[in-house]
Formats: sequence, C-alpha cells, structure tokens
Amino acid sequence: MKLFIEKLPGTKISTAPEDLVCYGFDASGIQVQPAAVVWPDTTEDVVKVMKHAYKNGIPVVPRGAGTGMTAGSVPVKGAVILSFERMKRIVEIDSENLNVVCEPGVINGKLQRELEWKGFFYPPDPASMNFCTIGGNVAENAGGPRAIKYGVTRDYVMEIESVLPNGDVMTSGVKTSKGVVGYDLTHLLTGSEGTLSVFTKIRLKILPLPAGVVTLLAVFNNLEASGDAVTKIISSKIIPRTLEFMDREAISAVEKFKPVGLPRDAEAVLLIECDGNPLAITKEAEKIADICRQLGAEIKMAEDEYARNNLWASRRAISPALYQIKPDKINEDIVVPRNMVTKMLTSLRKLSEETGIRIVNFGHAGDGNIHVNIMVDRQDKEEYRKGLDLVKKVFQETIALGGTISGEHGVGLTKARYIGMELSKKEIEIMESIKKVFDPGNILNPGKIFPH
Amino acid sequence: MKLFIEKLPGTKISTAPEDLVCYGFDASGIQVQPAAVVWPDTTEDVVKVMKHAYKNGIPVVPRGAGTGMTAGSVPVKGAVILSFERMKRIVEIDSENLNVVCEPGVINGKLQRELEWKGFFYPPDPASMNFCTIGGNVAENAGGPRAIKYGVTRDYVMEIESVLPNGDVMTSGVKTSKGVVGYDLTHLLTGSEGTLSVFTKIRLKILPLPAGVVTLLAVFNNLEASGDAVTKIISSKIIPRTLEFMDREAISAVEKFKPVGLPRDAEAVLLIECDGNPLAITKEAEKIADICRQLGAEIKMAEDEYARNNLWASRRAISPALYQIKPDKINEDIVVPRNMVTKMLTSLRKLSEETGIRIVNFGHAGDGNIHVNIMVDRQDKEEYRKGLDLVKKVFQETIALGGTISGEHGVGLTKARYIGMELSKKEIEIMESIKKVFDPGNILNPGKIFPH
Repeated sequence: MKLFIEKLPGTKISTAPEDLVCYGFDASGIQVQPAAVVWPDTTEDVVKVMKHAYKNGIPVVPRGAGTGMTAGSVPVKGAVILSFERMKRIVEIDSENLNVVCEPGVINGKLQRELEWKGFFYPPDPASMNFCTIGGNVAENAGGPRAIKYGVTRDYVMEIESVLPNGDVMTSGVKTSKGVVGYDLTHLLTGSEGTLSVFTKIRLKILPLPAGVVTLLAVFNNLEASGDAVTKIISSKIIPRTLEFMDREAISAVEKFKPVGLPRDAEAVLLIECDGNPLAITKEAEKIADICRQLGAEIKMAEDEYARNNLWASRRAISPALYQIKPDKINEDIVVPRNMVTKMLTSLRKLSEETGIRIVNFGHAGDGNIHVNIMVDRQDKEEYRKGLDLVKKVFQETIALGGTISGEHGVGLTKARYIGMELSKKEIEIMESIKKVFDPGNILNPGKIFPH
Repeated sequence: MKLFIEKLPGTKISTAPEDLVCYGFDASGIQVQPAAVVWPDTTEDVVKVMKHAYKNGIPVVPRGAGTGMTAGSVPVKGAVILSFERMKRIVEIDSENLNVVCEPGVINGKLQRELEWKGFFYPPDPASMNFCTIGGNVAENAGGPRAIKYGVTRDYVMEIESVLPNGDVMTSGVKTSKGVVGYDLTHLLTGSEGTLSVFTKIRLKILPLPAGVVTLLAVFNNLEASGDAVTKIISSKIIPRTLEFMDREAISAVEKFKPVGLPRDAEAVLLIECDGNPLAITKEAEKIADICRQLGAEIKMAEDEYARNNLWASRRAISPALYQIKPDKINEDIVVPRNMVTKMLTSLRKLSEETGIRIVNFGHAGDGNIHVNIMVDRQDKEEYRKGLDLVKKVFQETIALGGTISGEHGVGLTKARYIGMELSKKEIEIMESIKKVFDPGNILNPGKIFPH
C-alpha cells in the first residue's frame, strides 16, 4: 500500500499494525485486516481516494463505527478502509423545514440528543445508537425499536451527496418533502451496504419531539399469550412506538447477569411504549394494560425518565448477558408477518430442543422482527457446525411463514450465501446489473451482498 | 396491429376507432392514439402481451385511469395501451398485519372507503382519488393533501409483483414491515412511471383510522401572513394532516364559479386538518387558530363530516373553476422548502404581472408543494408561447430556492425536456443505464422521463 500513501499527500492514512487490527472487524466477530486505513476530512478527500482506487483497481470499504452485524464493513479482498470518524459534523439543523444535514460520521445518539435539546426527534434508534453512525445507518437502512410506529432509516433520508467509484460526486434526492423527478436513486443508495457509492453528506427528515411517553412492562407466563397480546394491541387500533419482546431464555440470562427483578419463571416479556399527546397516550396505555392483563400478564408502568430507564434495563442488558450462556452467538435477524411471531417462536423452541443448541430470542415483536441468537462455542467445531446448520433451518421456516432473512442488519458477508433462499434469480440478476452500473470495476465493498 | 391480435387469443383487445380515441389521452390534454388497447384480466395475460411485444419490438404503455398530469400514459411511438380496468380486485385486507393487496386497477377512493368501513386508513389521497388507480399512484409515487403528515405513496408500498419487459414475472419487496435483503427494487419501481416493469399486484401498508378529525379554514387578507402561518404552525411542533393553500386568483375563480362564501378580496386561504385522538386534536386546532388569528386571519372550524365538506367545497371546486378564466391551463407542480413558499408566491405574482399572463396557485403549502396554473388559450399561439416561456422561468426560480420541478405529478412527456435543470448529467446517465437493465429494447413506455 505504499503506492496508495504516496499518491494521497495531505490525507490522513495509516498502515500501522495497530490500525490494521482496529479497523478490520465489526460486531459479527469476523476480522480481516485492511491494506490501509484512510480518514477523509472532506468530500474532496473521498474524491481523491476513489479516483486513485479506481485507476489502480484497489478495493475500498467505507466504515462508520463497525457496529454492523453482518461483516458489511469488514475489508475482505485486500481492501482499504475509508473511516468516517473525522467527518462527523452536524452541518445544519433546519427547524423550519424539519430536516438536518449530517456528515456520515455523526453518531446517531449524538444527533438524537442535539435534536431533543431543541425539541426535535429523529426516530430511528438502532440498539447501537450510542456508537453507530448515520452513514452506517443509511448504508444498512437501520431500524430499531421505534420502527413499528416511525419506520426505518429509509423513511427519513431526503438527499444524499455521495462519491461514485470513479470519483464523481453525485447529489441525489431533494431538499423538499416531496420530489418525483426521475428514478429514486436516493432510496436505492439507502440500504445498499456501501456497494454503490460512498456517502459524504446526508439530509434527514426530522419530527417534532412527542410531548409525552408512557412505558409499560408486561410479564407473561405463557408464550402464546404474549403473541396474542401483540396482535390484539394492533387490532385495537393502537400503534405503540415500541413493542419489544424477550423470551424466557433472554429473561433468565438477564436475571443471572444483572438482576432487574423479573420473575425467573416468566415465559415472555413485552416492553411497550406509547408517545404523543399526554392525554391520548395515558388512555392508550390503559387500554394496552387491560389487553395484557386479560391475557394473564402482570403490568408495570412508568411515566417518568427514571422509572422508564428501570423498565428498559432488562432489554438493554440482553446482549452482554448472552455471553454468560456461551462464548459466542450466531446472531440472526429474521422478520415474519406480525401474526406469525408465536408460530415462529414455537418452531425455534422446537429446533432448539431437537438439536440441543440453546436459542435466545428477543426483538421487535410489533414488527415481527426477531433477533435469533444461536448460542455456541466457536472452539467446539462440532457445536459450531450444528449452529450453522440451524441457521439454514431458521431461514427456511422464516421464509415458509412469509418472512425475510434480514430485517435491519443487512446481508453483508455473513448472509450473502443465503440470499437465493429469499430472492429470485431475476432479482439477483437485476441487482448485480445495477451494481455494475455504479461500480463497473467492482472496487466498492466487493464480496458483500452477492454470493461469490 | 393485426399481428398483435392474432397472437393473443383469449385476451380482450381492440383497435376500434372509439377505443383508440378514448385511451390516448390523460389530464395533461395531450392526445396520441395508441396502436391498440389490451385489457388484461390476469398476470398471465400481461406476461403474454409482454412476451409478444418483446419479441416484436412493440412499445407498450401501462395505463390506470388516465388522470396523470404529465402525459405519462399517453401512448407515443405507436404504442399499445395495457389498460388495467379489469384487474381491479382488492385481493386481501390483512387486518392483523396491517396491509392490503390490490390489483393495479383498484380505484384509490374505493380502497379508501373499503378500508374506512373496517376501521383502517390508507393515507395517500391524490385530488383525483375517486378516479385514479393504485397502479397509477405507485407508478407516479402520487401524493395528496395528507402527505404533510403521512408521506406519499412510496411510504406505503411493501411488495410489487410486476412483469418485466421480456415477460418474466418478478416479485420484489417483503410481506413484513421491514426487510433489507439486497437493493431496494420495490422503491425503485415506485415512481418509475411505467418505464421499468408492468405492475400486476401491489401490497400496501395500512394504518388504523384516526379516531377524530378537526378542520379549520383560515382566511387571510395578506399573502405573507398566510406563509408565516404555515411556518409558525410547524414551528409550534404541530404536524397537521393537511395544510392546503389557495391564492387570491384561485379564491376569486372559485367564488365566480361556485360561490362558497369566501370574501372575494381575500389574499389567501389555508385549509387545515388535524387528526388523531379527539382530546389531542381539539387542543392542536385551538393552537393553530390562535396562530392564524394573531396573523390577522378569520377562522371557521368544523368538527363533523357535513361542516368539513362545506369547508373543503372551495378547495375541490378549483380545478373546474379555472376554466372560467381561460380555456386552457399549463399545470405545474413545483415544490420549494416550506419556508420559501411566500417568496415563491411573490415571484410568481411578479412573473404574472410582467408577462400579463394570469397565474393561479393552490396546493399543499405544508409540503411547500404549489400547483402553479398558467392560464392561457392554446388557440392563441402567441399567448401559449408566452405561457411555455413562463414555465421555464417558474422552474428556474423553483430550483434557485432549493426546490424541485415535480412534487407528485412525475416527469412523463411534458417535463422530460426540463429534467436537466434539476438533475446532473451523472444522475441522468445512471438512470438511463438502470432503464437499460430493465428494458434493453426500450419497449416499455418509451419517450417518457428522459429528454430524447
């Protein structure tokens, strides 16, 4: 990579071993060292890097904070990492037109706090919101608990400035709330996992901060009842802002790791939040509590920040708690139609019993989005292989129920081999042709999404 | 077209002169006779048509109800019309998963009523909702008054079954509320104006019907004050479900045509609706009324269906009323950032005074989306030419203010020559390459969007 450094005077770049180690992984646990790490400061820096990479056929992988779950930012094929840590300015908060312009390295949680302080709201809230970047969120079309009411990142992206693989700068989308001139490239780039262009500036829609929030925790001693509660709440014409789920394995893991007082024999917990006008949400919360109680649940309710944080403590403790069960997890991210959640969870329990592999489930029940954690020890080759076999069975069942194999984590490297289970040959062919339109030399994040 | 008929036994097809006249126009006023009209009953019929057209290089134009404003469904280049009048089944209303599956010929208003009756809500409400079809709405990414709160058609499209130009059937998207496997072809097809594939089935997200609606009419005798009201309402953290605007020319045309009792010297009218929990919206409506009164407006408020219909009467009467001014209108559909609406309207008034051509403005002020009606007589060549010159000036000013030349009507035929004012060469080049990926033979709705 000496050639790379010489050609890019004035841009921060490193091939130091400690940098190559630090920028070669994400939350999937997969690690591959990059050829070099570059930290652009400006769009012009990105242009410089891409022009050079394009001319020399050097693969480039854009990277936010490396919190991805599918190795989307892991630099396979000898790629150079473009790390956006230094492009982290909130360029503009336009309170009259309700939008905000960010550089890709802005941390989601930081944006949330800046906006809240001014009375505004950016709904997408991935679990990693205190670390993950807006650029990564847009690349993956990230979701989060609030997606049930407010949608996912895609629903907030208005305009993207990006650098194409050949170094051309393109601004797609509109500064306005509507716009239908030509094909929708902006939403094609959203969720394209860094394979079509490198984002350098992003305009996002924002909302007024809801005036009030109420949080409920409903503890069920019957799995079916919790699933019924989810469908009944929605059928009662209430759309809460979160409708989160934890199964008994998740509850017991949390209680062992960081007890928050959940009954250890509980079969399922729902964590439900309503937001909006305080008068309206109090009524909604009461209705939800009634529905859950009728299905046998015990209810805790919180109306202030402190009590709310207590209720969320268990949900937030899940990820670290899981490592108490096994040293590794195969973390999947399936979605089924909302009324198939109980059926899916029952199948998962059966699969776990049949194979002897523990499966811990939690996620966004209101969206039908279940994070399936297959607990294994990677050192135990036999167990790991059984775990991977299980993944395929989980995907088969998901697709049989009308679902998708990825709700918010993307395909990246880890799911590339499975996309043919969900997408038709024709779709994959069209997607690959679109990839060629943007990136004929296949230098931008190669090896991701497509199985080869 | 004899060849066409012989090759498609069992499919309803016509080359009768009266059909060729009836299916060759849309609301733009442009008329070109198709080579034939085909009425498919099933996806298989569409496959049959497209395979035949593909083999023989025959251009095909899918058509909903022909209510488009930019000649998107006008069959130029000797095209055959594929009319979806017979594919109008609501296939499924899934009340548990909150979505509905439609054939493309379903009328938007019919879907609205079917859903309301069951307590559900499909927000996109184009002015032509009692005639226009869901297929056309998705092809154009249609908007409507409620877009300010609920977004446009794109925000509701989950899954599209469509037939590609070569006759292959492709189902893109998901049955679930989330899904991030591969590029987002579903939202690329949305708004592609019938140039990439022919829709045969569409799954749309639906919402619970809001429990209450309040409607306000605010009459201003000062244009700036009405613009200030729009920004102040939004800045006060209220997002109404409609925030519609009519200027003095529109008011006076309506009062001459179908008097509803608006003061003829009014400079602007805002028609504002809030929906949701009845307790919450009453408070919101009071706050909005206060804001408007402080800016000098007179307020009428309606809380029931009858009174609401009275308030909407003026807004609904605009389109027919315009023809009282001049026999023809050049109907544009610009969007500027919300806080630029007054500036844009002032420029439009100046342009009208300079040229002596009357311009009537109304539209979705809350979105910054103004329907600019340039009133001319097409028989008066000089006046018509001046009208067309004016269009370009309107677009220049729109783009200078950070806007877009089409908010919800699409590009079609009438705006194709202007897209270079808004899109970069690179964007157009990428869009044309995407068109080639789907339609290498350029048989699907040729001559639209791109200027050649």
